[in-house]
Amino acid sequence: MSVIHPVILCGGSGTRLWPRSRAARPKPFLDLLGGRTLFQRSLDRVGDPDRFAPPLIVAGAAHVAAIEEQAATHQGARLVVEPAARNTAPAIALAAHGLAPEDIMLVCPSDHHIADEAAFLAGVERAAQLAGEGWLVAFGIAPTEPATGYGYIRMGAPLAGGHRVDRFVEKPDRATAESFLASGDHVWNGGIFCMRAGRYREELARHRPAMAASVDEAMVGAASTGRQCHPAPAPFAAIAGESIDYAVMEKTNHAAVVSADMGWSDIGSWDAVLAARARDSDGNSTMGRADLVECRNVLVESDGPRVSAIGLEDVVIVVDGDEVLVTTRAGAQAVGRLPGASGR
Amino acid sequence: MSVIHPVILCGGSGTRLWPRSRAARPKPFLDLLGGRTLFQRSLDRVGDPDRFAPPLIVAGAAHVAAIEEQAATHQGARLVVEPAARNTAPAIALAAHGLAPEDIMLVCPSDHHIADEAAFLAGVERAAQLAGEGWLVAFGIAPTEPATGYGYIRMGAPLAGGHRVDRFVEKPDRATAESFLASGDHVWNGGIFCMRAGRYREELARHRPAMAASVDEAMVGAASTGRQCHPAPAPFAAIAGESIDYAVMEKTNHAAVVSADMGWSDIGSWDAVLAARARDSDGNSTMGRADLVECRNVLVESDGPRVSAIGLEDVVIVVDGDEVLVTTRAGAQAVGRLPGASGR
Repeated sequence: MSVIHPVILCGGSGTRLWPRSRAARPKPFLDLLGGRTLFQRSLDRVGDPDRFAPPLIVAGAAHVAAIEEQAATHQGARLVVEPAARNTAPAIALAAHGLAPEDIMLVCPSDHHIADEAAFLAGVERAAQLAGEGWLVAFGIAPTEPATGYGYIRMGAPLAGGHRVDRFVEKPDRATAESFLASGDHVWNGGIFCMRAGRYREELARHRPAMAASVDEAMVGAASTGRQCHPAPAPFAAIAGESIDYAVMEKTNHAAVVSADMGWSDIGSWDAVLAARARDSDGNSTMGRADLVECRNVLVESDGPRVSAIGLEDVVIVVDGDEVLVTTRAGAQAVGRLPGASGR
Repeated sequence: MSVIHPVILCGGSGTRLWPRSRAARPKPFLDLLGGRTLFQRSLDRVGDPDRFAPPLIVAGAAHVAAIEEQAATHQGARLVVEPAARNTAPAIALAAHGLAPEDIMLVCPSDHHIADEAAFLAGVERAAQLAGEGWLVAFGIAPTEPATGYGYIRMGAPLAGGHRVDRFVEKPDRATAESFLASGDHVWNGGIFCMRAGRYREELARHRPAMAASVDEAMVGAASTGRQCHPAPAPFAAIAGESIDYAVMEKTNHAAVVSADMGWSDIGSWDAVLAARARDSDGNSTMGRADLVECRNVLVESDGPRVSAIGLEDVVIVVDGDEVLVTTRAGAQAVGRLPGASGR
């Protein structure tokens, strides 16, 4: 059994985790759950050298310093520096260029949380098996609520270890999400994919030939220094950005889905951060100096000042430099719309 | 009609208004309500030169600088510097020494709020009338709730403009407070007193002769510089501290009470601060930079950092240097018991 090649994508802004997450310090590189950052946890999960090759990281130039610092213990990691942000389809194509056609890629975001790593790794085995047979495999998350913030995948005919994809569905409204939950055959699109590098390039060339050609051109003109690869900026910048979901997964007739119940969270808000964190018997979780009195399900994050709280329930308090955020857990979804989160 | 001599007492710590109120910056000298501090408002209320003499301020040495700064516009104000904190009975005796025996004193705390100044001034006229007849007059506040945090006064036989005091009652338990509210003849003890200076000294000498003698001794040895009087420290420090309520008002058989409905608040907690503040149509009130989204009855005070809040109701947020307080309005009573409020 050949090793699997992790491709770690570092993108996204995460304005809903403001004020901790800011443009210069995005979500993957924050210690949100205690001890290791989301990026480091993403590397750790695929760190078993018996099963995985060293990771291939794809990120923008702004994050190279953070990556070099946080990936220091992952020997052999390579880094492809995106000349511009063009969404996931081109980013994954850059990574595919750095692998042999038969190599199996496991594409992972670096800003999600997976509580049950054993379930994740079992899913990886099933996905790798299907990928070896030529399938482009998405990871489906068994839904636990009628979420309207995720894309869904409808599972079709069964395959060994998974299903064919019947169709991808955009973020639904509430009623549709409830019908998906009731149906039992819809899963959340977890943004994790597994396929042979050559198969991805073939399908991209078929469905997005201009994009594939531009990526080829950018890689022909790439400059490599040590373990860093810098694709040529001009052809890459000319690409119209598109996600792998749109550009490839929805178009190919070799899409499969592997369903995994692995305690997945996109850590999409402070509410999700609290849900993923270790908590005390009152459901509270604190980082930094905090004194809580008669509080339940309260999250406190402070980078310096002491936070004293009395009588709060289901509230998030974040102190970061010259910004203080106090929100109900329900209101945490709206953090990205605050003046501060958009730099005003 | 002779002028009334205001005696402004500056004492107390106000730990329930932590973190804004701290030992070096106590409650009277804070801008809690917008524009003027509680101390300045106390001076302003008795600032009409046709009715009031310049004020006589009694305070500890630690607050002389704040008083000189904040009382600068009140010409002719005099200051008696307490050599030690010994509660109100000796403090008022120091002030009485600085007045003629026939002078009518109006003793006012400097950390309360009175919303209806006309009602206050009308009460002062009634109290001064009774004081002129030899009564020692307390101000009673018509209770609006069964508060357990205040002393009560039971009103006795009617007098012109007031009542005799039947008795003073310590802070009651809840059931007792409810019976007081239902009775209609109990009022809150507002901590405001009016009497002739000579009558106060007579009654103090009768009921607390040792205290009166020590105050006399301290004033004989006093050093005066400009408008400041510094009583001799040794005899004053030897006094056993006691309030005017215990030492004089409960003992004399010339205690009267004038009831006033004047929008009184002791600003005893952040909840009371919010109640006394000008608010917007959602009931919110902010000082400093604040962005509120879907908030109701929220108080924000910040000395620098921006506070962003979402979805909160009946919550107080105070940012002060390296301390951040977030409490429900109901929990605000417990602020004084926080580690931070006691300097830990």
